Amino acid sequence: MTNTAQQNELANAIRSLSMDAVEKANSGHPGLPMGCADIATVLFTKVMKFDPADSKWADRDRFILSAGHGSMLLYSSLYLLGYEDMTIEQIKNFRQLGSKTAGHPEFGHASGIETTTGPLGQGVANSVGFAVAEAKLAAEFGADIVDHHTWVLAGDGCLMEGISQEAISLAGHLKLNKLTVIWDNNSITIDGAVSNADSTDQIARFKAVGWNTIEIDGHDQDAIEKALLAAKASTDKPTLIAAKTTIGFGAPKKAGTEKVHGSPLGAEELAGAKAALGIDYPAFEIPAHILDTWRAAGRRSQNLRGEWESRLAASDKKAEFTRRMAGHLPSGFADAMAAYKQKLAADKPKVATRKSSQMALEVINKITPETLGGSADLTGSNLTNTPETLPFQADNRLGRYMMYGIREHEMAAAMNGVALHGGLIPYGGTFMVFTDYARPAIRLSALMEQRVIYVMTHDSIGLGEDGPTHQPVEHLSALRAIPNLLVFRPADAMETAECWELAMETADHPSILALSRQNLPALRTEYSAENKSAKGAYSLIGPDDADAVIFATGSEVAIAVDAQKELADKGISARVVSVPSMELFAKQSDAYKAEVIGKARARVAVEAGIEMSWNKLLGEKGRFVGLHSFGASGPIDALYAHFGITPKAVVEAVTAQL
Amino acid sequence: MTNTAQQNELANAIRSLSMDAVEKANSGHPGLPMGCADIATVLFTKVMKFDPADSKWADRDRFILSAGHGSMLLYSSLYLLGYEDMTIEQIKNFRQLGSKTAGHPEFGHASGIETTTGPLGQGVANSVGFAVAEAKLAAEFGADIVDHHTWVLAGDGCLMEGISQEAISLAGHLKLNKLTVIWDNNSITIDGAVSNADSTDQIARFKAVGWNTIEIDGHDQDAIEKALLAAKASTDKPTLIAAKTTIGFGAPKKAGTEKVHGSPLGAEELAGAKAALGIDYPAFEIPAHILDTWRAAGRRSQNLRGEWESRLAASDKKAEFTRRMAGHLPSGFADAMAAYKQKLAADKPKVATRKSSQMALEVINKITPETLGGSADLTGSNLTNTPETLPFQADNRLGRYMMYGIREHEMAAAMNGVALHGGLIPYGGTFMVFTDYARPAIRLSALMEQRVIYVMTHDSIGLGEDGPTHQPVEHLSALRAIPNLLVFRPADAMETAECWELAMETADHPSILALSRQNLPALRTEYSAENKSAKGAYSLIGPDDADAVIFATGSEVAIAVDAQKELADKGISARVVSVPSMELFAKQSDAYKAEVIGKARARVAVEAGIEMSWNKLLGEKGRFVGLHSFGASGPIDALYAHFGITPKAVVEAVTAQL
Repeated sequence: MTNTAQQNELANAIRSLSMDAVEKANSGHPGLPMGCADIATVLFTKVMKFDPADSKWADRDRFILSAGHGSMLLYSSLYLLGYEDMTIEQIKNFRQLGSKTAGHPEFGHASGIETTTGPLGQGVANSVGFAVAEAKLAAEFGADIVDHHTWVLAGDGCLMEGISQEAISLAGHLKLNKLTVIWDNNSITIDGAVSNADSTDQIARFKAVGWNTIEIDGHDQDAIEKALLAAKASTDKPTLIAAKTTIGFGAPKKAGTEKVHGSPLGAEELAGAKAALGIDYPAFEIPAHILDTWRAAGRRSQNLRGEWESRLAASDKKAEFTRRMAGHLPSGFADAMAAYKQKLAADKPKVATRKSSQMALEVINKITPETLGGSADLTGSNLTNTPETLPFQADNRLGRYMMYGIREHEMAAAMNGVALHGGLIPYGGTFMVFTDYARPAIRLSALMEQRVIYVMTHDSIGLGEDGPTHQPVEHLSALRAIPNLLVFRPADAMETAECWELAMETADHPSILALSRQNLPALRTEYSAENKSAKGAYSLIGPDDADAVIFATGSEVAIAVDAQKELADKGISARVVSVPSMELFAKQSDAYKAEVIGKARARVAVEAGIEMSWNKLLGEKGRFVGLHSFGASGPIDALYAHFGITPKAVVEAVTAQL
Repeated sequence: MTNTAQQNELANAIRSLSMDAVEKANSGHPGLPMGCADIATVLFTKVMKFDPADSKWADRDRFILSAGHGSMLLYSSLYLLGYEDMTIEQIKNFRQLGSKTAGHPEFGHASGIETTTGPLGQGVANSVGFAVAEAKLAAEFGADIVDHHTWVLAGDGCLMEGISQEAISLAGHLKLNKLTVIWDNNSITIDGAVSNADSTDQIARFKAVGWNTIEIDGHDQDAIEKALLAAKASTDKPTLIAAKTTIGFGAPKKAGTEKVHGSPLGAEELAGAKAALGIDYPAFEIPAHILDTWRAAGRRSQNLRGEWESRLAASDKKAEFTRRMAGHLPSGFADAMAAYKQKLAADKPKVATRKSSQMALEVINKITPETLGGSADLTGSNLTNTPETLPFQADNRLGRYMMYGIREHEMAAAMNGVALHGGLIPYGGTFMVFTDYARPAIRLSALMEQRVIYVMTHDSIGLGEDGPTHQPVEHLSALRAIPNLLVFRPADAMETAECWELAMETADHPSILALSRQNLPALRTEYSAENKSAKGAYSLIGPDDADAVIFATGSEVAIAVDAQKELADKGISARVVSVPSMELFAKQSDAYKAEVIGKARARVAVEAGIEMSWNKLLGEKGRFVGLHSFGASGPIDALYAHFGITPKAVVEAVTAQL
């Protein structure tokens, strides 16, 4: 079975632009766009629902190029479909500084890029979040308002990454029938044949986790269309389409080899490919009749969008849906938090900050229907559940709680997908040490500036007996190192409420809440209308002109406060500064920073982690009370004493400087 | 089919000690030891080859408790088998500070603990490295010297983690027939039934990646023995034994529920369990006839060990095998490196440090047969191959190169297994940004103090067009944050040789080599018998009493050197300090540190990453030239100019301070 001339012309337009752009940039990956051009042509011109005139249409289908190195496939398609910001100049500026056409698709650079991809497996993993968000919102708002599909194009690399197993096993368990993964089965990786490193029967693997599977020739456009429509019609399972393709399809010498994966073809091979494919037009100049056909296909869902707009306009859910998709918090949010903080000031609870996080969530989840909670199988430890959080399952799409299983990486990646989809605010929990497992996806939350909230409990050696494998030591510094990420470490229930409030209100940053396992005293016992944590650091107790300043976070603020009292007994005045977020403090005015840091002769920081992120505040002479090694297994009090994180150690660090 | 009274007695000894230890500690996980006691009894008393009198016997079978939270299963067994350092006092001190019986098994704490586990999936992932090492050494030294099995006990959590897919797909591809994973199929996770979060058909999943599978009742000791022997007899595939068990077997009310997973039983339930199991002896007091049977079983391979010792003594490979297993480098290593460094001084190559890493490896691999190289599918980019590195495959067990596939996390975990096994020194490559994917296993390399060498190329925005998803920015700081890890960032070919030498010579630390994609000038053009990188930082050029000191690493040292010249033109003297390893510098004497840091009025650090790890050296007044955000996609020169990492910026940072 062969394609018609027109089918080939449409696909070759993608190939031509992609080859030319990579050649001009002298950098990039022509192999995937050439190999997957037939798939993209059918998907974009016949099957997917979207409208370039309103790229943010809430009920559009989503396309995720998990194999992000094949970015020119997406950019070429967006140009051909008529997305206005994807001009031919952008195509010509592929991989140049400041262009919308970065080496890998970057969310926010151009319309039609639904997520940042490149780190392999992340798109497959995101897509589960997109599909969860669709299913949940469809259940909430009805299929009249929400009814769309998530399409993923993934390569062998995506499927070899461990995160893909977490993703597909979760998607299969949840029976996400509106999710389709198209596998670019080209049998080639960078180092050569896939068979050098892998012998997986992918069909059997996907069946084992509850997926439909369809095998096709990825260059047969009729077969592709049939497969995509079959996938779309699935009512009970996600679908894998295994599309056998030739990487670099059309390149006379390099097609089907790793040589065409990640380098320009070179002038000779490029000319040969164009000749073989019958591309007789100049570089970057798609003939009018081909472009017109693509553009018309780009417009073909405009009627559907019009009908959808009418249905939304007529719906009594319009205001709520619009608010939710815009990411605005409900109008009563601030008042509810204020009332809760007043109650905290009265109650002064002495609880672990993981518990005060749950208390804050009880307020938040009640007034904010868009939160989608979850935990990577540590609900009773993370305390991420509230009365509202019935599980989201195949038979309960209204559920507000993801039972992610022991899949920390997928949890983070799925939360990225949920946030990118819009309409929901995801939060999820695990032990803080396991941010390591989720780190590639946390980095993408930050790079994409998404409101994803990580509830990371058991945030220090304070977790005790589980020992060094479970005790975060370097993690606070390592997380603070990630640009755009807000790392909160609240000291008591009041600060926890403030930090939750900030995490919810900050739509353009992910947040990590680092929370204690152990109980902590109430230190902030007065109600403050101002969110003191919003400035990142503030003086908690002690005079402005104290002899010493003691910085601390989280569970160690109480230690600093005890040290302050011991110092006072010795006639030394000290001021304690709580630092719930270094990132927010860094954004304050120089005047405020100078005021908080002050001019005390002695400067100490105390945190049950390593020193690195404190050196900027401490300067050369300041002293750090914390850890300089991995932790150990033992009861909490023994550990704090053993590692010398005590009021006594703080007192000594102060007096040594005076 | 039921067990005999004696079979039950042996298994109940594990259950009894485990329940008692968790109860006494008031902390821990009784569910797994109770559920897997029958499996452990058969494995340790009938099937596994080992000798408590020589726990480091090179040809012993290895046991890996991937479900590390069930540590009491291992500790109880080690005590019962007669490992001398696992006394009943240690069992009574479970989870206490300073005991050998930490919350999770910690490598180095007690004989018989082959690897640190706890972070789920890591044991399954390590085990592939153990099995690879066995297969390779057997091919090198013959089955007379090396012929042992790797046994893993894994839970649902291990199998849900993505890393397990990377591990099993690699093991299946490599046909590691001497690897057996016993799955504790108890259908329970912390949050309740496995079916809340997962519907995987594990048997089908393992078959899809080329494993044998056997399903048994995990409480039927005869069936267990039959399955273990069948697994041991496999000649062409690794084996999964799916053992259906009851978590907390014997506990009258909590067995089969998540309530018995991670908390003490409580006095009443404990008494009920002992009654139900027929345990009528006091806590921690195993009756003599049971202990005698266990101890006799512990000694049953002593003859095998004796025969093995005789074979080794008679072998002409004895000296080499002994050297390799002791982890000593070959006697000619230092001379070969010295000769190579003399050649570098003569040649002054201007190459990327990834290329100079390959040049160093060409020397190292030639003289050091124990290196086992590899890459996560980026061989041509990481340049981790040399003429010696034919692939290790199912049909070439002599191969010295692991084609890890797109499995960064498994690469790191497998390298841990290879290093722990002994006899080989593993190194492996990927892009430095993907240390995030491997981070949980890198942390374990550091915690276990293993000689694992990470060859991390494309170490900054210098990689150019691939853009922010591929550009490490926070990674140098985030890696330096991990205790025990040596992070090397060499500036030219000479420093690269020195850093490789240090990584090879440091048997008790993992190393990361951060290497450039781009070419760099030769800066160290004189031969030095002393390894200057060994002190972590040293003055490269400029007078001791310079007005300014400029710290730099890797590709930015050349920028610092250019800035030094520009400053000299302006009449400002500057000294450039190369800092190939902050960790090694931190270990130097105060006098040396003071000498290197000096007393210049201006202090600048330049590194194409974030500032965090530099603040300690810079103090309050020093200036940092580097990144304060994620990178961008574009050609390298455009990026360095855009982000202001230039000689001009360094000059400005110096002059602003003078």
